[in-house]
Parts: sequence; C-alpha cells; structure tokens
Amino acid sequence: MNKTENIAIIGFGLLGASLGMALRGGNYHRLGWTRREEVRSWALENDVIDETCDDIKNVLAKADLTILCLPIPRIMEYIETYAACWKPGAVVSDIGSVKEVIVNCGEKFLTPQGVNFIGGHPMAGTENSGPDAAFSTLYAKAEVFVTKTANCSPDALNSVKGLWESIGTKVVELEACKHDDLVAHTSHISHIMALALTEAVLDCDDPDTLALRYSGCATGFRDTSRISSSSPSMWREIIENNQSAVFEVVKELSKRYKNLSEIIENKDYDQLEAEFAKGKKLRDDWMKYKNNG
Amino acid sequence: MNKTENIAIIGFGLLGASLGMALRGGNYHRLGWTRREEVRSWALENDVIDETCDDIKNVLAKADLTILCLPIPRIMEYIETYAACWKPGAVVSDIGSVKEVIVNCGEKFLTPQGVNFIGGHPMAGTENSGPDAAFSTLYAKAEVFVTKTANCSPDALNSVKGLWESIGTKVVELEACKHDDLVAHTSHISHIMALALTEAVLDCDDPDTLALRYSGCATGFRDTSRISSSSPSMWREIIENNQSAVFEVVKELSKRYKNLSEIIENKDYDQLEAEFAKGKKLRDDWMKYKNNG
Repeated sequence: MNKTENIAIIGFGLLGASLGMALRGGNYHRLGWTRREEVRSWALENDVIDETCDDIKNVLAKADLTILCLPIPRIMEYIETYAACWKPGAVVSDIGSVKEVIVNCGEKFLTPQGVNFIGGHPMAGTENSGPDAAFSTLYAKAEVFVTKTANCSPDALNSVKGLWESIGTKVVELEACKHDDLVAHTSHISHIMALALTEAVLDCDDPDTLALRYSGCATGFRDTSRISSSSPSMWREIIENNQSAVFEVVKELSKRYKNLSEIIENKDYDQLEAEFAKGKKLRDDWMKYKNNG
Repeated sequence: MNKTENIAIIGFGLLGASLGMALRGGNYHRLGWTRREEVRSWALENDVIDETCDDIKNVLAKADLTILCLPIPRIMEYIETYAACWKPGAVVSDIGSVKEVIVNCGEKFLTPQGVNFIGGHPMAGTENSGPDAAFSTLYAKAEVFVTKTANCSPDALNSVKGLWESIGTKVVELEACKHDDLVAHTSHISHIMALALTEAVLDCDDPDTLALRYSGCATGFRDTSRISSSSPSMWREIIENNQSAVFEVVKELSKRYKNLSEIIENKDYDQLEAEFAKGKKLRDDWMKYKNNG
C-alpha cells in the first residue's frame, strides 16, 4: 500500500463516519466531504477525517480511492454527476446494500473516464443512523462483499480490499447478482419479517391491550423486532433496488411460515418440536461459525 | 414479610437457579430441590440455595412459599403428585409461560388441601437453558405476571408479589386467559416467526450457497433469529398449552406479512416506506417505554 494514499470518504452517516474513525492512526490520508458544512467541521474536529473542502470536486480530484458512503440513490447520482472529477486511474467504491444497479451505474459512467469502479458492501450496521451513531469498531470482524467490474484493474481491486483489510474487515469477493440474491436472504427479508411482527404485536387500537403488550414484550421481542427501528427511507431504497430477489425470498419465507402455521393448526406437536429442533441446530451451527470466524 | 420465611425453589434450570442467586443475602431461607443429586450439590456449593434434602417431600413440607421452576408439564405433574405434601396455608406458585392450564391444575389439586396457588410468569429468560446459564440479575427490571386464583388468600397473593419485588421485578396482576392471549402476542409468535426465518435462510441443501449465507448473515439476522436457539421441547410445550391463542396470532401475523408481500409485489414503494415508518414509530415508542420503565 502507498503510505500516502489519499482516501476520500463521501458522506458521514453511520457507515462513513465509522470508516473514518476506524482509519484513525493508519496509513491513509483521510479526505472527506458531506453536504452539510457543520458536519464537515464536526468530522474534522473529531478526527474522523484529516482534511475537507467546501467543494466536493476538489476532494474527488485529489482522491486515489473514494468510498461513497451514501444512500443508494445518492451513490448512483454522485457517480453520474461527478464522473469527470476523478483523475484517470482513480478507484471509486461504495457501501451500498445492493450491488447490481450500482455496479452497472459505475461501469456506465466511470469506465469511459478511465476510472475504476469496484462495488463494496460491508455487512455492518446498527438500527441507528447518522454521524452520532458512528463508532470506530463497527467494521472490526465484520465481512465486506467486494464486487469487481469487467473493466477494473487488478490494482483497483487490491486497493479496495486493502482498505477493508487494514481495519480488520474480512473481504469476500462476489458477483453483483449473486450478492443481491444473497443479501435478500441474509438481510433484506429479516426487515420485512420484523416489520410484520412489530405491526402484529404493537399496531393495536385498544389502549388497555396496548399497555399490557408494552409490559409483556421482553427481550425476545426486543431482539426479534430490533431492525424495525432502522431508517424507513433507507430500507425502502434497498428493497426498491433489489425487488425481484427480495420478492423471491418473501415467497420462500411465506412457504416456511405456512408450513409452521398448518402444524400448529393441526396440533401436530411432535412435528412442531422437530421443526424447533431443526431451527435450533441451523442457528446454533451458524453462531459457532460466526464465533470462530 | 416474615424474616424467616422458608422459600422452596424446585428445579434449577435457568429460571430456578437464577432465582436462588437473586435471593442471595436476602431475608428468605432458601430451600431447594431438583431431581439430580449432583445439581443439588452444585446449588448448595454455589450459594444458589441454603438447604436441600434428598426427598422433595421434606422440602415441600417445610416451605411457606414454593416456586415450581419446571417445564409446564412437570409443573402440573408436581402439583398433582405432591398436593398432599404442603402444609395447609402454604403458598405454591410457578414460572410457567402459560397460565390458564396451570392455574386450573393448581385450583383442582391444591384448593382441596387448603394450599394457595398463585400463577406466576416472569418475563425473563435467554436463549440458553440449564443451571450453567443462570445469573443473579436475570430478573432485575424484568416484569412478572401474577395470576391469582378464585380461592387464594390475599396474604398468599402478597407473599408471591413480595418475593418478586424483593429482587427488583415489577409485578403485574393479570387474569390467566388474558395472560395467555398477551404472551401469545408478545412472546410465542416471535418464536414461530424466528423459526420460519431461520429455516428460509439456513435450511439450504447447496453447500456453496450455504457457505455464502454463513458469511452474509450479520447482526440483523443474529438478533432476529436469536430465539431460534431456544429449547425445542420447552417451546413445543408452551405452544401445546396455548394453542388457540397462539393460532389466532399466527393468523394475525400472516395477514400483516401478506399485506407487506403484496406491497412489494406491486412495487408500491411509497406505501412500503410508510409501513417501515409505522413499524419504526411503534417499536421506538415501545423501546422508550422500556428504557424509562
């Protein structure tokens, strides 16, 4: 790695600000930019970045590696709007939760400029958003999916991989369409399901019943529903940009739920216990993998 | 409270052993019993109880207040089997996750003996079970539902309430049938849903796809699926003993999920965002209540 590599972090939400914090004391010179001037000042004052500038174009022009830490529609908008600002040979990547639409956008607008686009998606986040929610260890031990494009150089790929590895994030290379199918399963469907649960439990007009449910909900509900507290606009954008893969998993989950529903309706408790045992083994095996990983 | 009140804890699983630990240094003399001799010794050696005995009958005979910390079928079995062992005026309670079947059993077998039965259900637990999973703060700030029976004395009710309040647990009095409807919503349905999710995501025959999903699942899936790691036999017993209330909520959740599914199928993203916003407000309001409670 070039010890004076200029990295530009664009956007200081949870992911962008946490990335800047994670890179503290490392070998990168951290440029950064976000729309609001007061957040740029906050980022400088709090050692989230080393340098900023009022005009994003000047930041992008200096950057060897840019990470667009923005909502999905903004990532695509910035790629199109600022395509001519990066220097030839520069590398642009992102943190968006879907990859096919973004990688297609990167190829379309950056390849003609001689700029490399590499898709990125760190599997890290909390139900909170914004710079106040940021913390330096968000990416430690997390995994990041990295999606190369047809026209990017091997060096560009290594540059993005090296960035994530330098802060302890495990890199997994994956094609864009496989990525989108994967995250529909591992992440997007959980948000649909947690939302349905939250509505079934708490969307209740009778105040006495609601008061009781407030008491009755405990740690099980707290954790199962946690991601219902995520950003509504972000999750709308994610599902909007991954509709076909998400809808396939919606149907798969519906099938699983219907099976359990029929088991309960038929009072087939031996089968119900077998399903619970299957679920426990599946989930315990995965936890073992995560804890040893 | 009588300073030398004898409490008997029967069963040293997560709930029983944690109750003994929570009562350390308090005003109760803690008797205790469980089936396995080595676990009785463990409980004595680790200050979970003050006194035990090989024969459960001797423990029950001494007890002013007994808490049956057992699986639901065992609670009912012990009430029936040992009904004649308690002294008249003694109080028996439990920690079972359903109340109507247990309270009916308590009335049937204990009332004729002059023994008071009060149903109890602390809203506390983790996905782990057994004495090794126990810890002294399990009940701190938790809530406990207490269900009186037609024939119990006011002193008996106060005795059970006093026990829980002495370890920082908030007591909520509730009729058995209302309790069972409530926990079907606030707890039991989450287990069905988390199981369906775990199966949809991890019950996958292709090893390459499964390996990717192992990588791709992160904190969102971890929390949403957490309760899938609970005891299969315990959850079978809970749902078996609360089938009609659970099945009503299964249908309610199905309706909510179908609505979201249609919104996604129809690509009605404004409506999807409105649903996400509704879910966030419902869940955030509940979290505020829990954090201030």
